[in-house]
Amino acid sequence: MDRIPEQIDTPDVLIEKDVLERNVERTAAAVRGKGLALRPHAKTHKVPEIAALQLAAGAAGLTVATIGEAEVFAAHGAEDLFIAYPLWVGPRQAQRLRRLARDARVAVGTDSAEAATTMGAHLGDAAGRIAVLVEVDSGHHRSGVRPEAAGDVARAAVRAGLRVEGVFTFPGHSYAPGMPAEAAAQEQEALARAAAALEEAGIEARVRSGGSTPSALLTEAGTATEVRPGVYVLGDAQQLELGRCAPEEIALTVAATVVSRHEGGGGIPRRVVLDAGSKVLGSDRPAWATGHGRLLDHPEARISALSEHHATVLWPADQELPALGRRLRVVPNHVCLTMNLVDDVAVVRGGDLLERWTVAARGRNS
Amino acid sequence: MDRIPEQIDTPDVLIEKDVLERNVERTAAAVRGKGLALRPHAKTHKVPEIAALQLAAGAAGLTVATIGEAEVFAAHGAEDLFIAYPLWVGPRQAQRLRRLARDARVAVGTDSAEAATTMGAHLGDAAGRIAVLVEVDSGHHRSGVRPEAAGDVARAAVRAGLRVEGVFTFPGHSYAPGMPAEAAAQEQEALARAAAALEEAGIEARVRSGGSTPSALLTEAGTATEVRPGVYVLGDAQQLELGRCAPEEIALTVAATVVSRHEGGGGIPRRVVLDAGSKVLGSDRPAWATGHGRLLDHPEARISALSEHHATVLWPADQELPALGRRLRVVPNHVCLTMNLVDDVAVVRGGDLLERWTVAARGRNS
Repeated sequence: MDRIPEQIDTPDVLIEKDVLERNVERTAAAVRGKGLALRPHAKTHKVPEIAALQLAAGAAGLTVATIGEAEVFAAHGAEDLFIAYPLWVGPRQAQRLRRLARDARVAVGTDSAEAATTMGAHLGDAAGRIAVLVEVDSGHHRSGVRPEAAGDVARAAVRAGLRVEGVFTFPGHSYAPGMPAEAAAQEQEALARAAAALEEAGIEARVRSGGSTPSALLTEAGTATEVRPGVYVLGDAQQLELGRCAPEEIALTVAATVVSRHEGGGGIPRRVVLDAGSKVLGSDRPAWATGHGRLLDHPEARISALSEHHATVLWPADQELPALGRRLRVVPNHVCLTMNLVDDVAVVRGGDLLERWTVAARGRNS
Repeated sequence: MDRIPEQIDTPDVLIEKDVLERNVERTAAAVRGKGLALRPHAKTHKVPEIAALQLAAGAAGLTVATIGEAEVFAAHGAEDLFIAYPLWVGPRQAQRLRRLARDARVAVGTDSAEAATTMGAHLGDAAGRIAVLVEVDSGHHRSGVRPEAAGDVARAAVRAGLRVEGVFTFPGHSYAPGMPAEAAAQEQEALARAAAALEEAGIEARVRSGGSTPSALLTEAGTATEVRPGVYVLGDAQQLELGRCAPEEIALTVAATVVSRHEGGGGIPRRVVLDAGSKVLGSDRPAWATGHGRLLDHPEARISALSEHHATVLWPADQELPALGRRLRVVPNHVCLTMNLVDDVAVVRGGDLLERWTVAARGRNS
C-alpha cells in the first residue's frame, strides 16, 4: 500500500530510483543549457552512489561542507572537490587538506585575510596545491564579506601562498516564498562586484560560483560560471511548498506507520500519529511552511506537531482517518537533515526494494 | 580557553563528567525522597555508560522509545526496559520482543484495543511475557486515549493474553514557560482517572507512570508510582530557559570554532559564525526560545540563525566580538537531538579529555 515494500520496517528512508535519476538528468540538462557548470552540493545526500550519478551526468565536480565529507567522496573516487565553507585551518586540518590534495583537485572557501593567512601558514609548502574561493555575502548575512572587500581577502590569500581562483556566494535568503528571483539577482550583482574587486587587486576571478536549489535555474551565465544546488536531486517539502519542485519530483520519503488514531472532539484534535519524528525527519520548520513535512499521497493532511518519534497529523474533516497499521510516505521539510540521520537508505522502484545504499558521509561534521 | 581540550576538533560534543554525575545523583535523590521510582528515559543520551550511572544510582529500570533502543541497552546488561511508545507490532516486531523478553523484563505501551489485539496475536505464546501499560492523554494531545477509555484498552490487552500492569502518560505540554505546574496537575488527574478505569474493568494499575524533565519533580507519589524524565541528566537550552536547570547543571555542550566575524553596520548584523549547525545541534526551536541554543560562557549572546554547518551569533553591542579561531561552548536547545547526531562524545573534566563514549543506540529509530 502506498508503494512501501513489505520488508521495510518503519520508520525508514526510501529513495525512488527512477525519480532520482530523472532529477539528476533534468537539472544537469537545464544547467548545461544555460552554459553554466553544475557542482552539486553532496551534503544533501552524502551517498557515493548518488554522487556517481551526478558526475556521470556531467557535473564538473562536487561541493561539500566539511573536510570529512571531502575525505569520504575522495575515497570513493571524486577528483574535484570544493569545500564551500570558510574553514578555520589549524595544523590538523592542514594535514588533512594536504592528504586530500594528493589525489584530488581541492578548493576551499575563505572570508577573511586572517583565516587565509592562518591556512597558508599551516599548509606550508602545500599551500599552492589548495585553490581558494573568496566567500561574499549576497544578502543572506551569514558568512562572506561585502563584495567590495573580496579583493583584500584575495590579496592576503595570494600572499599566504594559496591559489586564488575566484569567488562564491550562497543566496540562502532564496529559501522563502517570493524570494528566489530577488535573491538570484542579488547573487549576480554580488558575484560581479566581487569579481571586479579581485580584478582591481590584479587577481583573475576565473570561478564565480553561486546557486541554491531555489535560485540555481534563475542564475545566468556570464556573471556566474557555476551553480551549486543540492536539494534538487531528492526534493523535499520546503521545495514543494516554494513551488520549486513538483510532487512527482520528490525522490525521498520516509515510510511511517499509523500507530495511534483519534477521532477527537470536545476540543481535542482529530488526528493520527505516525512513528516518524524529528529523529528521522529532522526538525527544520520555517515559519512559512504548512507544517513539519507533508504526506506525499495525502496532500491535504497537515503535520501539526513533531516530537522525536511521533508525527501528529491532522486529517481532512471530510476524509476517513487512515487505519492503525497503515503505512504512509512522509516528505520531510529539509531532506539534507533526514539523510544525516540514517546510516543507510532503501532504494526502491515502485513497491520493490532494489538495494540499500550507505550514507557514507553521515555525521562527518568536521 | 573555555575548557575545550586542545585535541578536540570542532564541532564535537563534550560531556562534563562531574556535572553529569551530579545530575544523576541529584535527581535520583529527589525522586527517591518523594517515594517515587525513577525510570530515566534513555533516548536522551543513548549511551550505555550513562545508563549504568543511572542504574547504579538506584533507577528502577530504563525507559526507551523503540525496540531498537531496547535491544542496545539489553545487550549492555539492562534488565528492566519500558518501551514508552504505542507500538504497532507485526510479525518482525513480535519476534524481536520475544527475543528481548528472554533476558529482560519488557513492558510496552499501547493506546488502542486494535493495537493490543494485533500485538497479542503476533506474540502468540509469548504474549504473557510482555507487560503492557495503557497510554493516556493528559493534555498533550499526541498519542494516548482519554483516561476514561483506558479500561477498554486494558480489557482488550488482557483478552489478547498480554500482562497489563498499569497506565502511563507523557505531559509534553509541560515544555513551555509557565506550564510545568499545570501539566503536572493534569498528569496526576489523568493517571488517577485511568487507574480508576482499569479498576472498574477489574484490572489493577500497579504501575502509574508519568513525568517529563520539566514536571517530574512536581509529580507526587500516591497517584503516580514512577517518573520518566530524560533530559535532566545532560540539560539543554530549553530547560535552562524554562528555569528547570541552572547553567552549572549543563553537562553537554558542543565545542565550536569562530570561523567568520563581521562588525556589520549599514543594516547588516554584527555577528560571528560558528562551525556548529543543525547537523550537530539539531534544529528544534520552540517559539518561546530566545534562539537556536545558547553559549554557555556568554549568556548575553543570541544564536539568531542556524543552517546545517553555521550558527549565526549576534553579539552584545558592548562586548568585543570573539576572535576568529576562538573556540566556544554551545548549549543545544534539545539535547536528545544532539546525541542522536553523533557517533561518539568526548567525556571531559575541566579542560581534560578523559575518554570517548559511543552513542550506541544512535539512529535506532525502529
